[in-house]
Amino acid sequence: MLAHRLIERKRDGGKLEPGEWRALIMAYTAGHVPDYQMSAFLMACFLRGLDHAETSALTEAMLGSGARFSLGSLGKPRLDKHSIGGVGDKVSLVLAPLVSVLGIAVPMVSGRGLGHTGGTLDKLESIPGFRTDLTLAEAQAQVETIGCALMGQTTELNPADRRLYALRDATATVESVPLIASSIMSKKLAEDLTGLVIDIKRGSGAFLTSFEQEIDLAREMIEIGASHGCPVIAVITAMDRPLGRACGNALEVEEAIATLNGEGPEDLVDVTLALAAEMLVMGGVAADCDAARAQLRAALASGQAADQFRRIIERQGGDPRVLDDTALLPQAAECELFTAPRTGFVQRVEPRAIGRGIVALGGGRSTMTDMVDPAVGFVITAKPGDWVEAGEPLASIYARDRTGIDSGRATLRSAVTIGDEAEPPLPLVSHRVTKEGVEELR
Amino acid sequence: MLAHRLIERKRDGGKLEPGEWRALIMAYTAGHVPDYQMSAFLMACFLRGLDHAETSALTEAMLGSGARFSLGSLGKPRLDKHSIGGVGDKVSLVLAPLVSVLGIAVPMVSGRGLGHTGGTLDKLESIPGFRTDLTLAEAQAQVETIGCALMGQTTELNPADRRLYALRDATATVESVPLIASSIMSKKLAEDLTGLVIDIKRGSGAFLTSFEQEIDLAREMIEIGASHGCPVIAVITAMDRPLGRACGNALEVEEAIATLNGEGPEDLVDVTLALAAEMLVMGGVAADCDAARAQLRAALASGQAADQFRRIIERQGGDPRVLDDTALLPQAAECELFTAPRTGFVQRVEPRAIGRGIVALGGGRSTMTDMVDPAVGFVITAKPGDWVEAGEPLASIYARDRTGIDSGRATLRSAVTIGDEAEPPLPLVSHRVTKEGVEELR
Repeated sequence: MLAHRLIERKRDGGKLEPGEWRALIMAYTAGHVPDYQMSAFLMACFLRGLDHAETSALTEAMLGSGARFSLGSLGKPRLDKHSIGGVGDKVSLVLAPLVSVLGIAVPMVSGRGLGHTGGTLDKLESIPGFRTDLTLAEAQAQVETIGCALMGQTTELNPADRRLYALRDATATVESVPLIASSIMSKKLAEDLTGLVIDIKRGSGAFLTSFEQEIDLAREMIEIGASHGCPVIAVITAMDRPLGRACGNALEVEEAIATLNGEGPEDLVDVTLALAAEMLVMGGVAADCDAARAQLRAALASGQAADQFRRIIERQGGDPRVLDDTALLPQAAECELFTAPRTGFVQRVEPRAIGRGIVALGGGRSTMTDMVDPAVGFVITAKPGDWVEAGEPLASIYARDRTGIDSGRATLRSAVTIGDEAEPPLPLVSHRVTKEGVEELR
Repeated sequence: MLAHRLIERKRDGGKLEPGEWRALIMAYTAGHVPDYQMSAFLMACFLRGLDHAETSALTEAMLGSGARFSLGSLGKPRLDKHSIGGVGDKVSLVLAPLVSVLGIAVPMVSGRGLGHTGGTLDKLESIPGFRTDLTLAEAQAQVETIGCALMGQTTELNPADRRLYALRDATATVESVPLIASSIMSKKLAEDLTGLVIDIKRGSGAFLTSFEQEIDLAREMIEIGASHGCPVIAVITAMDRPLGRACGNALEVEEAIATLNGEGPEDLVDVTLALAAEMLVMGGVAADCDAARAQLRAALASGQAADQFRRIIERQGGDPRVLDDTALLPQAAECELFTAPRTGFVQRVEPRAIGRGIVALGGGRSTMTDMVDPAVGFVITAKPGDWVEAGEPLASIYARDRTGIDSGRATLRSAVTIGDEAEPPLPLVSHRVTKEGVEELR
């Protein structure tokens, strides 16, 4: 009866009290409220919205459903970065080792890919032997000893959010600012952080479709963080084209390793350094972003960051030799170049089309239970704004068979547009949102 | 993926094509779409609405999910009456025998009580031995031989609606005009009718809360009926107080029997005759409503209607002696009078409070799986507008024990208001809605 009454209230545009959020989430997690009631409730939330107090109460309720890291005794800043879904976004794989060798603990709990977006866990698991299913105790010990753990959401951490997220995914209730904000913040606050940087993607490949929604989401998370003693800064980055060149799990690990070895594509390096610099400043390790960038570049150049990734891989059961020989990563049976069908400016490389193309190749998920082929994907060297000649290679397709190559070619044909006029892409790192306001970056 | 896409479309205010409604309902009925997706979809329908074409397509899709009566060879009119939920509404028990002895076939498929409203099946089942779970073949044979069958929705008839209704009930998505209209019409069109009369309740005890919604619902059903060759007339009747005096399953059967024996309360007789007269006119059995009323009164006075109820009870396994001795119906262990706490005008007898009071006594359902105690309930003799003296009996409480009596007394105390001014109740039969328009009745 509780659930029915709360569904009805939210359906009619009413508000739930903190105690009601807690009771509902507890009852759902305990199995007393069935999925079919919760999904109707979620749709009512999606269409009627939640105010700040409700979003904060929902976050608190989900946070309370599980265990948390306890890292206060480390005596150093604990920071994480979270990204709102993208294509080709392997920033975490570079950033976590990089930041964690500079005196910041990084207890990073990541997710899997779904729909057109990739997920850090799937990428990591393409490293032979790599275990992402650490227990909370294992992860905590690892953060204490080497400063970083890269793990999935265990059954201990935030079971309410795990179930709710799967349900939202199945019921078209994902793209709601308060539901996204509370889901992310309930996961991140369980990491016992002293600060959090959010990478909010903007553009045709982003989850959210308007700039207002993105700013709303940033503000919502900043507010939730503030009410839980965890400062949050959001950085808005471009997702009107894939980030970096590689799109596909093992291919992205390869690119992340290249980046840790100082050979990353410029856009990936820029976004990684922008986010990592915020973390260093928030953690008090650098005085400002310029100083932070210098430290970060030095840690990349010296091999320190790559060594840290090696330690993390080794500690989590993976084969650390991939850092020196990426041929140890899963390899696709078939590879083919895709060339420019005409001469002109590359106008668009549509991330959604690329993301869906990876799913079509078997490298992503339509549903949470799909298996992922780590080896398939694309390496797209062409960027919007580039001038290309007909017949010039724009990308490579990696597939398990010839059918996959055909599918990949069709994906690229629809994703890559070449025309006579250059169409300016979005600025790569465009805004910074803090509790003080929105700052446009030049 | 189909369900997800359709949820998303409806969520964003879009429309589904007839083929999409069909595919969705088929997939749901076959178990390929889980309840949790359907309930999110239903909430989106509730909040975004359906247009006429969609409501008709949904009706058609649900109708197509099951078997139908086939009564065309009877060579006589087939009519039914459907009521949109009320308290004390035992009209069907009187009307079905009455109309079916006057040359009209009545294949009546009814529902169970839920929430504050009662259900015809629960009432019938308080007659010892009475079976409402007829198969379609049994019901059809019974209509062919005695002109009437009173049954529940079998698994053969409209399985989609059965499942959807239970899901809507659990997810606060019942009170939606297009969902109500399509649910009712899909059930009623499966009866192979030549006409249908709808009793739409109005007032504080009604499902719908505004007169506009009631007129909308009437129009929606008239439109669906028209597009399926089944004329529909809606009559709007008062549900700002219970209908008749008895509220509770066996008590209502007792009152229905009294009415068939010519001793019914005036309001129950009036509503029954208003609805039955429409059926006689639609069926071509009477030239106009006045002539129809005369025929109906004659069938009551002659005992023909009571004999027909006896035949129906006998045919469906029940004990026909209840018509002569209502003490054969289940009897409550405890009975107590409720007297007027003060002198004045009865201002209100709140049907919702009474309906919930019956549930509290064990005579109704909070969820579809609750067992119902047929004997409990109220007989309320006081009507809004009556002048009563302090200490004068207003009602009797029937309960299984003393706790029930206390609960019943609390119910009546909150449901019955007495004050210095008379508050005029709604007119009993106020409007008639046909495809020509809304007619106010004097």
